[in-house]
Amino acid sequence: MQTSPFRTSDQRKADREEKREAVLRAAVRLFNERGFHAASLEDVAASLGISKPTIYHYLGNKDQVLFECVTRGVDQLRDAADAAKALPGTGLDRLRSFLRCYSEIIMDDFGRCVIRTADEALTHESSARFRALKREIDDAMRELLEAGIADGSIAPLDVRLTSFTLAGALNWPARWHRADGKSRPEDVAAKMVDILTGGLAPR
Amino acid sequence: MQTSPFRTSDQRKADREEKREAVLRAAVRLFNERGFHAASLEDVAASLGISKPTIYHYLGNKDQVLFECVTRGVDQLRDAADAAKALPGTGLDRLRSFLRCYSEIIMDDFGRCVIRTADEALTHESSARFRALKREIDDAMRELLEAGIADGSIAPLDVRLTSFTLAGALNWPARWHRADGKSRPEDVAAKMVDILTGGLAPR
Repeated sequence: MQTSPFRTSDQRKADREEKREAVLRAAVRLFNERGFHAASLEDVAASLGISKPTIYHYLGNKDQVLFECVTRGVDQLRDAADAAKALPGTGLDRLRSFLRCYSEIIMDDFGRCVIRTADEALTHESSARFRALKREIDDAMRELLEAGIADGSIAPLDVRLTSFTLAGALNWPARWHRADGKSRPEDVAAKMVDILTGGLAPR
Repeated sequence: MQTSPFRTSDQRKADREEKREAVLRAAVRLFNERGFHAASLEDVAASLGISKPTIYHYLGNKDQVLFECVTRGVDQLRDAADAAKALPGTGLDRLRSFLRCYSEIIMDDFGRCVIRTADEALTHESSARFRALKREIDDAMRELLEAGIADGSIAPLDVRLTSFTLAGALNWPARWHRADGKSRPEDVAAKMVDILTGGLAPR
């Protein structure tokens, strides 16, 4: 078959998707690096050698771009929770698996953006949707804890407070862990989860 | 002895201290409630029925007021660390005592302000001093961990990462715990410290 100089509909779609992804990735990195308010779409555009209207074309205005970034982060966390729920083993095993993934996601671009984004950075409507998305993750964490309490692998703890404690500890690296630092996210995640689920005393 | 209508030097000093304290307390509450940028010294003054120059007189400009608030918070944390270090018992006992105090301080006005204040909110010079103060607290946490590892009451963990994990978990209530909520700070603190030092599995 002869190769056509014209792209097929599928190729155009894939091409568009690839460009949209590149814009989103450049945006989330700049938001994380400089803070949402200090980062401008002009800078995002400049980093890719494109114009600001091109960003509008692929992703919309700055609020929409940020909302897409945090939605992507929450989606990754939700996928991790769903995957953990489907695993064999005790409730504690499944929770530990989720916590490790959660921690690694928080040290990656989109998860980091979820934590670094203050609710007030978004418009009123986006902010309400963002809070609802975060509640889903908290609910998933509580469900995993409850399953562990039910099967006896987790002590009968205060589920709400335990969920906040775990999330608080695991969210913190979004502030201090540097992607170019010497500690690998998977090592940090594994160690943190051991501390959180195993406690401090010698075992 | 006849009572004089004129105040003594000591009384004037105590009076000045009381007023300064009232201004500082009103300021920290407004900063925590509205965020530093949204809160104005005019609002702080209005809440006390005084003028903005009166605030300048007692505490200085807005950056100086904020720096005084976070310094007060760090001082409370440092005092808690010093008190814990002087306690009898194992290193783990002393660490647990510090962590409970740390957590309660973080849910109180000045401690909350330490966590809610982004380094960038302060001037360049104040920001550098603030970071140095926070490092002192991190150092105290590591010292307590190391003492516990040395006496065998704490497992030989990665001290830096453990300190970050504990602080991350305990700092989080500065965002979600409401002073007027139904959970008392001392109960939240005790439960969080049990989770963090004891782990999740049944004991």
